[in-house]
Amino acid sequence: MMQLQNAGRFIEDLAQELGPKAVLMGPDVPVRNRTDWSFLPQAAPLAVFRPSSTEEVSRILKTCSQAGIPVTPQGGMTGLCGGSRPLDGGVALSMERMTGIEQIDPDGMTMTVLAGTPLEVIQKAADEAGLFFALDLGARGSCAIGGNLSTNAGGNRVIRYGMARDLVLGLEVVLPDGTVLSMLNRMLKNNAGYDLKQLFVGAEGTLGVITRAVLRLHPKPGCVCAAMCVVNGYDKVLELLGTARRTLGPFLSAFEVMWADYWHQATERVPGGKAPVSIGDGTHVVLIEVQGLDDEIDGARFSAWLEQLFEKGVIEDGAVAQTLSDMADFWGTRDAAAEFANPAVIGPHISFDIGLPIRRIEEFVTRSKPALLEQFGCHSVHYGHVGDGNIHIVAWVPGADPQPLSDVSTVVYGIVRELGGTVSAEHGIGLLKKPYLKHTRDDAQVDLMRRIKRSVDPDWIVNATKIFD
Amino acid sequence: MMQLQNAGRFIEDLAQELGPKAVLMGPDVPVRNRTDWSFLPQAAPLAVFRPSSTEEVSRILKTCSQAGIPVTPQGGMTGLCGGSRPLDGGVALSMERMTGIEQIDPDGMTMTVLAGTPLEVIQKAADEAGLFFALDLGARGSCAIGGNLSTNAGGNRVIRYGMARDLVLGLEVVLPDGTVLSMLNRMLKNNAGYDLKQLFVGAEGTLGVITRAVLRLHPKPGCVCAAMCVVNGYDKVLELLGTARRTLGPFLSAFEVMWADYWHQATERVPGGKAPVSIGDGTHVVLIEVQGLDDEIDGARFSAWLEQLFEKGVIEDGAVAQTLSDMADFWGTRDAAAEFANPAVIGPHISFDIGLPIRRIEEFVTRSKPALLEQFGCHSVHYGHVGDGNIHIVAWVPGADPQPLSDVSTVVYGIVRELGGTVSAEHGIGLLKKPYLKHTRDDAQVDLMRRIKRSVDPDWIVNATKIFD
Repeated sequence: MMQLQNAGRFIEDLAQELGPKAVLMGPDVPVRNRTDWSFLPQAAPLAVFRPSSTEEVSRILKTCSQAGIPVTPQGGMTGLCGGSRPLDGGVALSMERMTGIEQIDPDGMTMTVLAGTPLEVIQKAADEAGLFFALDLGARGSCAIGGNLSTNAGGNRVIRYGMARDLVLGLEVVLPDGTVLSMLNRMLKNNAGYDLKQLFVGAEGTLGVITRAVLRLHPKPGCVCAAMCVVNGYDKVLELLGTARRTLGPFLSAFEVMWADYWHQATERVPGGKAPVSIGDGTHVVLIEVQGLDDEIDGARFSAWLEQLFEKGVIEDGAVAQTLSDMADFWGTRDAAAEFANPAVIGPHISFDIGLPIRRIEEFVTRSKPALLEQFGCHSVHYGHVGDGNIHIVAWVPGADPQPLSDVSTVVYGIVRELGGTVSAEHGIGLLKKPYLKHTRDDAQVDLMRRIKRSVDPDWIVNATKIFD
Repeated sequence: MMQLQNAGRFIEDLAQELGPKAVLMGPDVPVRNRTDWSFLPQAAPLAVFRPSSTEEVSRILKTCSQAGIPVTPQGGMTGLCGGSRPLDGGVALSMERMTGIEQIDPDGMTMTVLAGTPLEVIQKAADEAGLFFALDLGARGSCAIGGNLSTNAGGNRVIRYGMARDLVLGLEVVLPDGTVLSMLNRMLKNNAGYDLKQLFVGAEGTLGVITRAVLRLHPKPGCVCAAMCVVNGYDKVLELLGTARRTLGPFLSAFEVMWADYWHQATERVPGGKAPVSIGDGTHVVLIEVQGLDDEIDGARFSAWLEQLFEKGVIEDGAVAQTLSDMADFWGTRDAAAEFANPAVIGPHISFDIGLPIRRIEEFVTRSKPALLEQFGCHSVHYGHVGDGNIHIVAWVPGADPQPLSDVSTVVYGIVRELGGTVSAEHGIGLLKKPYLKHTRDDAQVDLMRRIKRSVDPDWIVNATKIFD
């Protein structure tokens, strides 16, 4: 890295070139550009650049590469792992001024957007065009599509539509040396050489900066139905998942499971929390969502299927959403974890985002829960996208400040490793999970990641210190 | 490259180590290992290795890397671009002895297979397990899954299930230096660092050798329906595609278009060719396939939809398959191009596999067809996966031997470039399309491909000379 003094000169020259809107320096760097939603402390970057064009992104990266100044790309700053937290003495490169929808192609079902565009703006534009953009997650109002792609975001409908990777056809990317890769492919199929865009999806900004994307749209669903089902035992969860896949086929758009421990927090402790069904002696509550073609035909088929499951004893109890308000209540219970930080509910806690082979998820829960309690007096509750093999854990030691992040992580990720799982199913590695990357990827894989990084970013300029060293 | 003499010694040592089943040398190399379905002349490799384990693949690659002997990975040898044709003086590494299904996980809906396993064996095993493997293409009986993944194969159901890339969750790969990358992930979601398997999918064996794969299975469709629709004008093709997507949603599993010029060849010239509908004055015939949940409900909905389209004048005529034999006839017409090499039909010809933004496909046809005829007396007919933006062209100059491959390619790929298309939608680049890679990928992209290749295969050992130099 350059001395601060020289770095400052480079940045001042760039600031002059790009104009005052494009840069804020030192103490003027806004709080929002200093850290993300990981609760890591604020960083002290030299500056935040806010380019308005790909050409400006290219000039910034080229200059910083030449000067050896580390650059951290930033989208909506909603990441949970510190991936967009800048380095002290480095610069942040925020895409906040590069927003907007450039083109919608109804025949090709594609949309071309600038990388800073918020997810919700994209969802609405697709809807207005009579189409559907399938990516959806809690931070939709704040997160930027460039960040969604850089982290290969997952969310609520992966079981049907896949992750962010599956929803992108083309990218424009600026490499660390300033080279612009214009890969704005609009076709579903293109096998002309390596599919280079795959490199940048999920790389958490360590290989370059995404500036534009061609997104894949889907037909708008004709109807949406949802049900909450109480089951008794994880075997019944698996049976329900199997029959849901067979009977609902490609209509199945969510299969979300809440363990009883989560359910009690979400429905009894969260202010305003509602229990759309009564859990009784049940062990899990499953939220099933279906996107069909026609409410009359497919809604009736869905209800008939649920009734059959009740009669067969697969489910103990169930409720079908009759109104949009019911639907919102169902999802509200599933999303109640967002309220857990409230001291009246749980307060400070540790969150996990692990992936496991579906059959082994209950084994994880029955091993980790008592281990955490016995070893650290740490409580834990469980919920998540079981249909995708991905659960979230909320863990906390009452009254502890700070929470024992490292101790708890060691136990959780140790079991994940033994069960052949992943330390991150959807949030990424960033800074927070770096110590645990090798629980999921062996030395040979991390070594190849490094070789790829070195070949694309030989000076180790973009988002250095993230994922691996 | 080493002198032949030294290379021979390395190979003989390896042959001794691995045993006689694992290697055939010089004149004993079978014809099938000397070229693929590209019609390129047979090569003269020093040997073909036929390892029976990942460990043997690793030893072969390590030895060849150290000795500087180029290695060409081989699967079912059904590629159309020369990708698996070995080098004179190099060695072929055939996966033909590494076949078999190792595990099926019904909860996770995954199947773990060895790379040499034929596609059809996989399809049948999934079916027997009550599940469905969605990849399907003409060479299903001969092609190997490792080759399907290395070329990111497309085929008949991309519109619904995606390409080979979308159907793989994990890979085991041997790098050129013999390092084994064990990335046998079985989860739908895994964001722990770079998703390295993406590098090897579609790399045509230029970055390493795939030895095992974890495939993604789908629920078995409850019913399959198909229709053939005659339309008048490409605008009507687009209208039909739009309404098919909206009305049939995720059920739509194929949208294949035959231009009238193709239709006449397929139904009138091919021996035993059948015309399931009468084209009359129509310009295109569309084969629509739907995979539904329940024949009674979804089959009726499909027929009602078609009747409506006929009444509205979107389609001129249509036929719905009533029996499996009807269905076979519909697909037989679509697949009749396989018979075009018969001298009684067309005889020697040139095939293309281009991709275009869907709206521009007809523009391509109306420009290229007269240009080829006027410039070279070259006839051409058109058909393909219009729903994926991918068409095939069969072009021929009657009586010409050889066919003017280079002249015709220059015209076809020139128009493809102008319209923002791709020189290969699904077959890959291999040797045949190398001169045209830059019609689709610019210098910056090809340069990055080279950097990636160099970082993974510094001695340029695996499948050297393919895709780019």
